[in-house]
Amino acid sequence: MESQKEETIQIYRGWTEFSKKEVSEKLDFFSNKERLFDIIFAQQFDRAFLNFMCHLANQIRLLSKTKSGANKLSQLLSHKRAMLYFVQPSTRTFISFLNACHILGMKISEIRGTTTSSEVKGESPEDTIRTFSSYVDLIIVRHPVAGFAEKTAWVLNQTERPVSIINGGSGPDQHPTQALLDIYTLERSFERIGGLDGKKIAMVGDLKRGRTVRSLSYLMKNYKDVTLYFVSPKVFKMKDDIKGFLKKHHIEFLETEDFDSVKPLVDAIYMTRIQKEYSETPSKEADIYPEFHFTKKDLARIQSHCIIMHPLPRRYEIEVDVDNDPRAVYWRQERNGMWIRAALIAYLFCVDSVIAREFC
Amino acid sequence: MESQKEETIQIYRGWTEFSKKEVSEKLDFFSNKERLFDIIFAQQFDRAFLNFMCHLANQIRLLSKTKSGANKLSQLLSHKRAMLYFVQPSTRTFISFLNACHILGMKISEIRGTTTSSEVKGESPEDTIRTFSSYVDLIIVRHPVAGFAEKTAWVLNQTERPVSIINGGSGPDQHPTQALLDIYTLERSFERIGGLDGKKIAMVGDLKRGRTVRSLSYLMKNYKDVTLYFVSPKVFKMKDDIKGFLKKHHIEFLETEDFDSVKPLVDAIYMTRIQKEYSETPSKEADIYPEFHFTKKDLARIQSHCIIMHPLPRRYEIEVDVDNDPRAVYWRQERNGMWIRAALIAYLFCVDSVIAREFC
Amino acid sequence: MESQKEETIQIYRGWTEFSKKEVSEKLDFFSNKERLFDIIFAQQFDRAFLNFMCHLANQIRLLSKTKSGANKLSQLLSHKRAMLYFVQPSTRTFISFLNACHILGMKISEIRGTTTSSEVKGESPEDTIRTFSSYVDLIIVRHPVAGFAEKTAWVLNQTERPVSIINGGSGPDQHPTQALLDIYTLERSFERIGGLDGKKIAMVGDLKRGRTVRSLSYLMKNYKDVTLYFVSPKVFKMKDDIKGFLKKHHIEFLETEDFDSVKPLVDAIYMTRIQKEYSETPSKEADIYPEFHFTKKDLARIQSHCIIMHPLPRRYEIEVDVDNDPRAVYWRQERNGMWIRAALIAYLFCVDSVIAREFC
Repeated sequence: MESQKEETIQIYRGWTEFSKKEVSEKLDFFSNKERLFDIIFAQQFDRAFLNFMCHLANQIRLLSKTKSGANKLSQLLSHKRAMLYFVQPSTRTFISFLNACHILGMKISEIRGTTTSSEVKGESPEDTIRTFSSYVDLIIVRHPVAGFAEKTAWVLNQTERPVSIINGGSGPDQHPTQALLDIYTLERSFERIGGLDGKKIAMVGDLKRGRTVRSLSYLMKNYKDVTLYFVSPKVFKMKDDIKGFLKKHHIEFLETEDFDSVKPLVDAIYMTRIQKEYSETPSKEADIYPEFHFTKKDLARIQSHCIIMHPLPRRYEIEVDVDNDPRAVYWRQERNGMWIRAALIAYLFCVDSVIAREFC
Repeated sequence: MESQKEETIQIYRGWTEFSKKEVSEKLDFFSNKERLFDIIFAQQFDRAFLNFMCHLANQIRLLSKTKSGANKLSQLLSHKRAMLYFVQPSTRTFISFLNACHILGMKISEIRGTTTSSEVKGESPEDTIRTFSSYVDLIIVRHPVAGFAEKTAWVLNQTERPVSIINGGSGPDQHPTQALLDIYTLERSFERIGGLDGKKIAMVGDLKRGRTVRSLSYLMKNYKDVTLYFVSPKVFKMKDDIKGFLKKHHIEFLETEDFDSVKPLVDAIYMTRIQKEYSETPSKEADIYPEFHFTKKDLARIQSHCIIMHPLPRRYEIEVDVDNDPRAVYWRQERNGMWIRAALIAYLFCVDSVIAREFC
Repeated sequence: MESQKEETIQIYRGWTEFSKKEVSEKLDFFSNKERLFDIIFAQQFDRAFLNFMCHLANQIRLLSKTKSGANKLSQLLSHKRAMLYFVQPSTRTFISFLNACHILGMKISEIRGTTTSSEVKGESPEDTIRTFSSYVDLIIVRHPVAGFAEKTAWVLNQTERPVSIINGGSGPDQHPTQALLDIYTLERSFERIGGLDGKKIAMVGDLKRGRTVRSLSYLMKNYKDVTLYFVSPKVFKMKDDIKGFLKKHHIEFLETEDFDSVKPLVDAIYMTRIQKEYSETPSKEADIYPEFHFTKKDLARIQSHCIIMHPLPRRYEIEVDVDNDPRAVYWRQERNGMWIRAALIAYLFCVDSVIAREFC
């Protein structure tokens, strides 16, 4: 069976060669006349683009506060159809994208789960995607295989009727819209104190395997004078590739295991889930690395403007009692994901100018 | 594994205390300025509310008969987003709520099935609901755990951005919108003969375990001079809690095993499914308690205005040949569920006045 | 368990008698005042109807090219609700119908998968469908049991509130909308060379079990002077029932195993999947019947106007390198399915005249 399945993967000429290129060499292929056409890598975002997305997300958020504004938004793409193709389950990201599409009035086809009937019949993943592209104007893909979204966009861009692809998380590394919502949350939270430039950010927990903190670190090259504090147990230290990148771009960072001493210093604390690496000695989860948790009493030790972020879901890293403090922005961070994704989709369909007109 | 799962349920302070209160003491917490904000218990409905819902459902039903009326309805909440969170499968209730939302033009996110990826990652059910509330304006919950909808509403009402919760069936006891649709069906069927006041209603089948007949019995306290006939085998008699409640509110009821003698006396017959309690002696289902079934020949024995109801699905309790008699209203009863749910949602979003304006 | 399940199928009087009739005798029952009301069999389509559907699909396709046209379309049925009831999984057909509904602005309820909770509770399939019909205005059914869609329509047409049924594939034989999209693809491809009349069409692969080639062969009686080439290994020859039908209607056909000699002669090549009948001698799928595959080098051997069709999904029958040739129309064929299904639904709701008015 397994070997048969392997056999079905058909070869599209040129992919192997393309896939080996550096990301920087690939970017043009996913753009169209100076505008991003597919959203595949966080590396596609420069400072101007990030600023523009935050601005557009703000506009969408404001418009949706009134019925007339919300109705205007929902007519913007009422003639467009999107597919959410989530081979890898992820309720949170799925619902966020779905409602981003709903805000803009798109009609949605959903594929959730690990197998579709076509795959059962032995169709290649490329043919499946090309089939979907027959029916819709945008495909948002989440897939466990690294590079799947990229390959998909590559195949479609060679057809006579390409549709945009958004990478909703593909393999262990790339999840560009998560990075986007983190940036938006930081910029929005620091709106009255000069934005993200010059800020000190602590990243806490499993930095070795955490996709979000890695992506966010990369994007720091777009901001001035940011200092990162990597706070983790020794076994979960940030990997050398990121540290090399930061050095190359002259971004200051410090590594420490002492969370307590960092708390009063920073403008933002980005908490992440932390789990035991090896579980030979079973222990209660709540007791694992408690020194890297954030509790109610820590609220007194951080600055009055310091925000607490978390990509969610959380387990024990943040005490529930922290939730009602105004500096706990992780629930707002989720909602920001919806706004920034709506902004991204509006941009891809070139209706950002229609939105801007509402603010003239 | 199981113990780990237990461990993830985080404690929200105050819930234990709140949950132990009498229902009557809780009602204020789920209201907002004299208007219901969450729909959790059938006890939230008084006569004025029930009358208003029936009236509003009629208006929605009439409007939807024309294209222009239907289009007006579908613009009422076109700027709002709902989530149907059905952890416990229930196709009928799900589709009924979904189409009620569609009538009002809401955009829908669906979660159907027993597990979501967040739960897999160990998120607490409260965090999951709070996440959903980030993206939508209304959550309709169906859950196997008694009190789940209540707890959910309780948690959200303490946040800075609460959204309304509708209980779509939670545990063995509460299913308030089913009670609502039963009342609407009775009132609508008796429209020309004075409504539900003063009517005789037979409830037939498994009264001991039947959630619908229990809820409906409770709501009778809102109507005058109703008489209930509890028709069941001895092993499935109505429980003492309901009978105590009826006595306390001076609602007349009789208990009998003799369905035949009751048939000519009543204005409505509410049939329910009946299954063998113990199955040591396997027998054909169709042969179980046939004296509590309703057959074609019984149509000649009931009054010309007597209606036959059933919450559906049915098995053998009602012969298919009964379906085409105009007094068989169980299919219309289903459709009434959609209208009354649309009315309820319109009320929660305060657009009932917009609907009323169409009838000035 | 199984016997219990059997037991739940309730008997609707008259079905056995009706089901035994010839298709030609049944057609009136699925029509309403000269207009088709349910779409059950390909035999319901005559030349006038097929021409009209192709014309209407063209109009819908053209309108949807502009935002204003697409918005007009999406208001046509914005007050109507459809259900997609797909008991048998079929992602492709599902997504095609879903987006056809979206084009016309319908609100959709989806049931995908093999069991619904009602079925679990022992409800008869007829009751399940009647329940669905309470909530929506159209039901599109896909079911593994032959005749299921027909029986469903038969039951509903006897109620006081019937809704239209579209057969989205039912059992091994009937899949009328697939036949419709194949006709549309042929007519559209031959638009400038006189349409389908007088053309030569090769059908290649497993003709014995292939549902699409069988249905398409039947529909040829509506066209003049068509010649069919049945190209298959001996074990997969077209069955006698079709050949008898063709003879009766004086439609010319030839049978051959020699694909190569047919290639230069025909105006269309309809490829289908071909799998080993018996698998005692396991072999690589790619190596099965390679003489019935179409490869890049064959492009040089066919006429300049000859189109290559495939119902998809494909495995090895057509080389990926063929895809970019303009004569490879199988991706467009998929998209045509969406247009023709939108046309069919517009027709069922009598809004085809509204569409026509846009072209006056």
